Amino acid sequence: MEWLEMSTENCPVQLTLDLVGEKWMLLILRDATNGVRRFDEFRRHIGLSEAVLSDRLRKLTAAGVLRTVAYQEPGSRSRNEYRLTRKGWDLWPVLVALRQWGEAYTGDEAEGPVLDLRHDPCGAPVRVSVECERGHTTLSPADVSARPGPAAHPRP
Amino acid sequence: MEWLEMSTENCPVQLTLDLVGEKWMLLILRDATNGVRRFDEFRRHIGLSEAVLSDRLRKLTAAGVLRTVAYQEPGSRSRNEYRLTRKGWDLWPVLVALRQWGEAYTGDEAEGPVLDLRHDPCGAPVRVSVECERGHTTLSPADVSARPGPAAHPRP
Repeated sequence: MEWLEMSTENCPVQLTLDLVGEKWMLLILRDATNGVRRFDEFRRHIGLSEAVLSDRLRKLTAAGVLRTVAYQEPGSRSRNEYRLTRKGWDLWPVLVALRQWGEAYTGDEAEGPVLDLRHDPCGAPVRVSVECERGHTTLSPADVSARPGPAAHPRP
Repeated sequence: MEWLEMSTENCPVQLTLDLVGEKWMLLILRDATNGVRRFDEFRRHIGLSEAVLSDRLRKLTAAGVLRTVAYQEPGSRSRNEYRLTRKGWDLWPVLVALRQWGEAYTGDEAEGPVLDLRHDPCGAPVRVSVECERGHTTLSPADVSARPGPAAHPRP
């Protein structure tokens, strides 16, 4: 079976994008990985309408990417804040990869990074890399073959 | 400066998503990294209308992510096919990361992968990893700090 003969119905890229393949979704996740948890903070920082933000937070919570935790400020009613689950944190490499491309192609290299990601213990800059399970790292597309796996189906 | 005080105007994730933060864009790039080059092949495989596909290919070409190369089938007029540039291939880790999440959370692990990515020389499965420049690999979000870099600006 060749790529063009593969059904896209269960394509893992496509199914992921069905959930997060929208700019607002990924910006909410960007903010969440940077510690934002509260509705008004997401709204102000991303510049989203309340209606759109509510809808997207609801979808991310329903999908198990975010979970709600109640909090209460003195004198206010109880509200929910939004925290990434393990499933949500597993989208972090997508965001690191998007950041890396943006730093390389939309920024000014001489100016340095906009968002500086560093490995805490050693202080070295962080990057995303494609590697194999035997430990070969920094693989390029030419080093990798993509073939339909056992769960692939032919197109109808 | 804290995250919420940072201007999002030059955020590298946001500027990347301004270009590719849409499901169709990323599905076109998914197909392109799997060897699809011709208009009709993209259209049929992704299931996009001609108008939307033309528009997205035009935007990706204008952004330097794809380049056009003329080809001619016997008896037909000359047409363009679309090939990834270096700038386009540099989005490959984004797609590998999206695939990885989809294989983990939308597939059936017992069935195996839908799209099997293997390191050519050794045959081992391929994954995306966050690593630091000193070679520490498989970093988790807890190992990494994100701080505004020298190119960050405060919010107006």
